[in-house]
Amino acid sequence: MEEAHYSNIHLALVHFPVYNKPGEVVVSSVTTLDVHDISRVCRTFGVGNFYVVTPLKTQQELVERLIGHWMKGHGARYNPTRKEALLKTRVIKSLDAVVADVTEQCGEKPCVVVTGAKQVPNSIEFGTLRKQLQEGRPTLLVFGTGWGLEKNLIRNADHVLEPIEGNSGFNHLPVRGAIAIILDRLLGRS
Amino acid sequence: MEEAHYSNIHLALVHFPVYNKPGEVVVSSVTTLDVHDISRVCRTFGVGNFYVVTPLKTQQELVERLIGHWMKGHGARYNPTRKEALLKTRVIKSLDAVVADVTEQCGEKPCVVVTGAKQVPNSIEFGTLRKQLQEGRPTLLVFGTGWGLEKNLIRNADHVLEPIEGNSGFNHLPVRGAIAIILDRLLGRS
Repeated sequence: MEEAHYSNIHLALVHFPVYNKPGEVVVSSVTTLDVHDISRVCRTFGVGNFYVVTPLKTQQELVERLIGHWMKGHGARYNPTRKEALLKTRVIKSLDAVVADVTEQCGEKPCVVVTGAKQVPNSIEFGTLRKQLQEGRPTLLVFGTGWGLEKNLIRNADHVLEPIEGNSGFNHLPVRGAIAIILDRLLGRS
Repeated sequence: MEEAHYSNIHLALVHFPVYNKPGEVVVSSVTTLDVHDISRVCRTFGVGNFYVVTPLKTQQELVERLIGHWMKGHGARYNPTRKEALLKTRVIKSLDAVVADVTEQCGEKPCVVVTGAKQVPNSIEFGTLRKQLQEGRPTLLVFGTGWGLEKNLIRNADHVLEPIEGNSGFNHLPVRGAIAIILDRLLGRS
């Protein structure tokens, strides 16, 4: 079985700066289930690191305790699959810190691709990005929580990925589901 | 914008009979987040009903309370999107009851397609099932929780869908993620 290598492709789940429902810029809470789900999806599609981005020390500690439980504690013996899924999960303070970490690892600055539910002009299509990823350029896929990524973060990205369109006007996928679909479209076997 | 109509396609999330880690047949617990996530994904792809299957009265009541909160309570005003997502979510005691309900609605017995992480002989491929769904035949897509659907349930199905293969040997997607990917592959715009 041929294995694709996507270790140059990294994923960030951003909890700040994001919008809340009334449109203010806030820090959203980490959902521990996101950490498990997204780690498993990332591992399935063979991507590099999964970065959980939050500036809050207490939230960072929560994620580190969760990872520690499944990596070293009772959890590692009870469910080795979770351990394997979490091997490349990191918690980090900001998206700038993610870019710096990826740059150090890959030896060059990654192409930053942000995602979202809205149509924007000049977005990159799934097929185009899929080809670019197959060429091996280091890439960081950025996902927001809450009511979406703050606008400057979108403005400063190299690309905005086109949104997922379903078969209805309904446009409110959970971020866990959106990540699963997007990685399958970009990296899944065709 | 042309809208596809998949109201003949229904989805069931089964909490009994499923396996636990040691391989015993058990009732798994309902995860409330599953109810929200899967409802949102179903709504995005325009499918018919989403059935949460559990024989336990207390768990049925839990799901009904959750749906009631977002349909009629404070939740309906606070977040109408959740209300919209839950409009076609039902809780029901068994898979047989789901089949009976779908049969009554569609006027014919649905084609039952079970899903799972394992390769099985004679499974139906995504492309083939996609075509079949476009032809409009009533279909019930069945997903298991815990460590997977009990074997007789799989044996009695009309089809077993081929598993999702990622780009690694890792084969442990969360059911929420698997459903998102499978609906996108079967019903998403190509």
